[in-house]
Amino acid sequence: MRPSGRQPDQMRAVTLERNVSPKAEGSCLVSFGGTRVYVTATVETTLPSWRRGSGLGWVTAEYGMLPRSTDTRTRREAAAGKQSGRTQEIQRLIGRSLRAVVDMEALGENQITLDCDVLEADGGTRTAAITGAYVAMADAIGWLKARSLTRGEPLRDSVAAISCGIYRGTPVLDLDYVEDVEAHTDANFVLTGSGKFVEIQGTAEQEPFSREELEQLMSLAEKGIADLTILQKAALA
Amino acid sequence: MRPSGRQPDQMRAVTLERNVSPKAEGSCLVSFGGTRVYVTATVETTLPSWRRGSGLGWVTAEYGMLPRSTDTRTRREAAAGKQSGRTQEIQRLIGRSLRAVVDMEALGENQITLDCDVLEADGGTRTAAITGAYVAMADAIGWLKARSLTRGEPLRDSVAAISCGIYRGTPVLDLDYVEDVEAHTDANFVLTGSGKFVEIQGTAEQEPFSREELEQLMSLAEKGIADLTILQKAALA
Amino acid sequence: MRPSGRQPDQMRAVTLERNVSPKAEGSCLVSFGGTRVYVTATVETTLPSWRRGSGLGWVTAEYGMLPRSTDTRTRREAAAGKQSGRTQEIQRLIGRSLRAVVDMEALGENQITLDCDVLEADGGTRTAAITGAYVAMADAIGWLKARSLTRGEPLRDSVAAISCGIYRGTPVLDLDYVEDVEAHTDANFVLTGSGKFVEIQGTAEQEPFSREELEQLMSLAEKGIADLTILQKAALA
Amino acid sequence: MRPSGRQPDQMRAVTLERNVSPKAEGSCLVSFGGTRVYVTATVETTLPSWRRGSGLGWVTAEYGMLPRSTDTRTRREAAAGKQSGRTQEIQRLIGRSLRAVVDMEALGENQITLDCDVLEADGGTRTAAITGAYVAMADAIGWLKARSLTRGEPLRDSVAAISCGIYRGTPVLDLDYVEDVEAHTDANFVLTGSGKFVEIQGTAEQEPFSREELEQLMSLAEKGIADLTILQKAALA
Amino acid sequence: MRPSGRQPDQMRAVTLERNVSPKAEGSCLVSFGGTRVYVTATVETTLPSWRRGSGLGWVTAEYGMLPRSTDTRTRREAAAGKQSGRTQEIQRLIGRSLRAVVDMEALGENQITLDCDVLEADGGTRTAAITGAYVAMADAIGWLKARSLTRGEPLRDSVAAISCGIYRGTPVLDLDYVEDVEAHTDANFVLTGSGKFVEIQGTAEQEPFSREELEQLMSLAEKGIADLTILQKAALA
Amino acid sequence: MRPSGRQPDQMRAVTLERNVSPKAEGSCLVSFGGTRVYVTATVETTLPSWRRGSGLGWVTAEYGMLPRSTDTRTRREAAAGKQSGRTQEIQRLIGRSLRAVVDMEALGENQITLDCDVLEADGGTRTAAITGAYVAMADAIGWLKARSLTRGEPLRDSVAAISCGIYRGTPVLDLDYVEDVEAHTDANFVLTGSGKFVEIQGTAEQEPFSREELEQLMSLAEKGIADLTILQKAALA
Repeated sequence: MRPSGRQPDQMRAVTLERNVSPKAEGSCLVSFGGTRVYVTATVETTLPSWRRGSGLGWVTAEYGMLPRSTDTRTRREAAAGKQSGRTQEIQRLIGRSLRAVVDMEALGENQITLDCDVLEADGGTRTAAITGAYVAMADAIGWLKARSLTRGEPLRDSVAAISCGIYRGTPVLDLDYVEDVEAHTDANFVLTGSGKFVEIQGTAEQEPFSREELEQLMSLAEKGIADLTILQKAALA
Repeated sequence: MRPSGRQPDQMRAVTLERNVSPKAEGSCLVSFGGTRVYVTATVETTLPSWRRGSGLGWVTAEYGMLPRSTDTRTRREAAAGKQSGRTQEIQRLIGRSLRAVVDMEALGENQITLDCDVLEADGGTRTAAITGAYVAMADAIGWLKARSLTRGEPLRDSVAAISCGIYRGTPVLDLDYVEDVEAHTDANFVLTGSGKFVEIQGTAEQEPFSREELEQLMSLAEKGIADLTILQKAALA
Repeated sequence: MRPSGRQPDQMRAVTLERNVSPKAEGSCLVSFGGTRVYVTATVETTLPSWRRGSGLGWVTAEYGMLPRSTDTRTRREAAAGKQSGRTQEIQRLIGRSLRAVVDMEALGENQITLDCDVLEADGGTRTAAITGAYVAMADAIGWLKARSLTRGEPLRDSVAAISCGIYRGTPVLDLDYVEDVEAHTDANFVLTGSGKFVEIQGTAEQEPFSREELEQLMSLAEKGIADLTILQKAALA
Repeated sequence: MRPSGRQPDQMRAVTLERNVSPKAEGSCLVSFGGTRVYVTATVETTLPSWRRGSGLGWVTAEYGMLPRSTDTRTRREAAAGKQSGRTQEIQRLIGRSLRAVVDMEALGENQITLDCDVLEADGGTRTAAITGAYVAMADAIGWLKARSLTRGEPLRDSVAAISCGIYRGTPVLDLDYVEDVEAHTDANFVLTGSGKFVEIQGTAEQEPFSREELEQLMSLAEKGIADLTILQKAALA
Repeated sequence: MRPSGRQPDQMRAVTLERNVSPKAEGSCLVSFGGTRVYVTATVETTLPSWRRGSGLGWVTAEYGMLPRSTDTRTRREAAAGKQSGRTQEIQRLIGRSLRAVVDMEALGENQITLDCDVLEADGGTRTAAITGAYVAMADAIGWLKARSLTRGEPLRDSVAAISCGIYRGTPVLDLDYVEDVEAHTDANFVLTGSGKFVEIQGTAEQEPFSREELEQLMSLAEKGIADLTILQKAALA
Repeated sequence: MRPSGRQPDQMRAVTLERNVSPKAEGSCLVSFGGTRVYVTATVETTLPSWRRGSGLGWVTAEYGMLPRSTDTRTRREAAAGKQSGRTQEIQRLIGRSLRAVVDMEALGENQITLDCDVLEADGGTRTAAITGAYVAMADAIGWLKARSLTRGEPLRDSVAAISCGIYRGTPVLDLDYVEDVEAHTDANFVLTGSGKFVEIQGTAEQEPFSREELEQLMSLAEKGIADLTILQKAALA
């Protein structure tokens, strides 16, 4: 039924390759099937001005797509002179999602910036980015801990993300691009490793959805995130 | 318990004043307690270029805050030279929410632009904007129908929005600014008059939330939207 | 003769509604017939850097038009990414006009920002904005005085503004939009309550004008400003 | 009394050097004492889109200051990424002033652009620019007429400009920079060769001025413009 | 002598990995030691407007650095809102270099865009980009030829690039970052496979250089380009 | 053979007029035939922030073209809102070229900014700008020395620039615009008065060039720069 032949509750093959950038304090090349995102984590001791002197750290994210990550070339945002509303929305989501599992007091006055650059886009780039950014961030925090630059353990939990949607009337897990275009409803879920919700964003693309449908998507997401959490642990082992 | 003395499931006083702009094809001054948004609906026969010739209409929205709608003055975005990520996120949400209840074929090659300018901001500006924009849009569609410029009825349903959150451990309806700042979880719901979901955006501001908490917020939202729908009908009667 | 049926020396109905914004230190909704401008006055203790430490205060203004304040929708300047030359010209004029009646030493190191947002534009938005901004500023100065934050009285006089023009050969007071489009000459006058000139801007739209015509416009303006001054005093009483 | 030793009604030495740019259809290097402006007039057959097909021509102007035209270096606007409000105000004024003496029907569908670049700024750059731009424009119109590209004579009159002000209590003609900084009132006048007003812009820099003072400035301006008109005629002879 | 232990005329290990992007018509991941650039070639049938209808094709390039390609994080140009002068200089160089070996008539009205995104920067990113972009472009041209969309063979030659410099008094080939920072002279050479010069850019960073030194750098470059040409042929075989 | 009738190794008439700007610390109006560039040198005691406290000075340059310096009007960059890639490339080149002959320690913590504004463009504007900017800078350094603001002599050498190219198969010196458009190869050379190279930029516009051709261009440039050096000395005498 699904163009890829997957079962409704079947994710694409997910890989998390650590330490792909020799310069960054943490990095991860994450792939969800044909979607590939290159994530680096940078540690800096300079905080945004509004945060300085608070004793608290900060985690933020930036997102971009290489122009030919898409089927037809997308205009380079640096050339266009601004980031699109979509880009800003996504990078704000990534930042919020990661901050939800970090103890800012333990992090101390350090900033971690996650740069998520999409090499190939085949649906679910924002959820892949969050899932991979957690791995890169965990390594950056490890880098800080190895240098005794934190106050205790800044990581309170892990975090991962997955999209679900209603494709031809059936709730399915991890939409690829072909499904995404056609899906009536598209929802992104960000959950912690312990199964709590960090973010839920559900959108009726064409037809409003019922509460029952939303519940089904939630259950799919809970299952998917559980699997991603296992993969993240394995990658960081 | 709530700073305003409201019950957990009690909305603020909501008013929907129609026809506040003599020039616009539809308009509404909506207030949710101390939050006031001035909405105009503009009908144009020029569509965005990618939409032309499709036989379909388009609905879009723009959002802005007057500089002193907030407790301390916020910089004017026109002077800053760009719209913030938050502004873009909100106006995209408003546009999507309204499109969900419009039959674009029936609308024909007309564009309706909803301008939502916040005169006073006391929490919930985006949900107030959506609720009021529906009223302005309904009048603009009435304007088109009165001139036989549609093909049948473009309005498939009504749409309204409300925020909910977990304030000091209790799920509450319609957060005002004081509650919003402190709430652990903040969720915005957009539902149709017939009770289906158009959009759900839930964010853990500090602590991840459980599925049970999310379900409670959904139930509050369903109740609130039902009340808003009655007010919208009354306003348009 | 005039499309509105007014006498050549007759202003439109002018109203000045104070305290329309509960958050601002001063505010005024001013209307000149179909032109309506929402003005807020914000008091801040931070001055522009070039003014700091001088012991002197500062008064500045910003101006904007809501997109549908005009007959057809005008593009939102925040979306366009810059303020037009016209907008900048107008907000510079408003700022200069108000500074002319303020004793900056008495104001002390406080800044007052007047935000003038046009809800409806039917000609004369800049002169309405100045007239209303004076009322909002007076209230903001009252707010400062009530807190003993000034050194004596910062208000040296009142200030108001009106447009005049030559419409179909006749000098007329307070042009509305229909007249403005057609007028051969358009002049804006800013005068103090004591009848002195703060600013005069006269422009030949099509035909150069004679000194005699200019003198007639001045006399009309003096009469109009005298009436506006009475209305301002009444509003502030 | 005046720092330069001039009489109150005495202009600085004014020179108008024609044909300074071999490429432009008209050009003029104008100097008012230490103020020097390099003006070129460009003829193009492409009109702004809103003007096309009207049968009417268009005249427009742009203004800029070389960074070191001022005592201390002023930031280059191209590097800053935008034109200041002052620059826009001035170039709009120059354009309006020149259009006032052109018969757009006779000009036909041609556009003339006046580029006014200030080599040295010692007060009165905008009035010098207008005075020199008229000469450059007259040559550009001569260029069009020599090619039979007009319909009759587009020039209805000449136009020139001068500033006046109240310096230490005395109304004086043609303020230089030192006077301009200190003057209580500063007014720019644009008049035609036949002595009619095209534009008047008077501003109270510190103290509001009386109608009598304004009348005195007008008389000075009328005298100054009469002299400038003679110089323009001589330059174009 | 060289920090890397290389001989003066020894290049870093160079790899050219083809077809790294499944969506692009051509692609190449090129590495010169620790410098890695991800290049995609996009074929489009839309030309820039000034080129349309000429019967000729066009080749252009864009360049960017991922924020953490550098030792410390570099600001994302899309977030900064503009491309730096350095970025523009480099992408203009890449485009010119590739156009030098393309027969635009044979290419027909097709445009090839080379996107060169630096994953890791360790000196010589622009020369690596050109060398890899040739491979990606060759594949894109192959794609066009396979679809009979060219008129004959558009590739007239191959092209590659290398940097040379004077490091501690010795002319050396292929500067890495550590050498680049310290080098007195830095020159970039772009040559065709047949050994002709397409571009030479030599800069005295601190001390002017003699003609003899320049000749030595040229000879090194000729040797290096010959080796790169062999690697390109092998990659495309 | 050359459109101007010049010999292959013959420069255009070059003039260097000093002290054209009464306000600047140094200035020069340089002409190479029909190319005229107005250069001012500004001395400031404020350095860019990254340079402060280093004890070293800084020299930088900005470049612009007046809109009608070209045959058809070029858009004003200040109005376009940004400097083109070409402009940035040129002003970076001018700055590098001048810095190559300045001892930054001897200059002390002073900044010299060279503003190069093209009044007329007939080919070779960047090389003319460098040649004239040296004269303006030498005067600015003289100004500093006269005030004992340097530590010894900051000028280590003189610097000048010239373009060469292959026009209809013949290497020629100092291309004018007509030649530049048609030339197969275009190279800019920046050399010191003592004959060493500061910068070489050679570009194959259509056909790659051989090493022999490049050598011929170098010899032409060496001859041309020797002549320019004599002219610079004479101007500064």
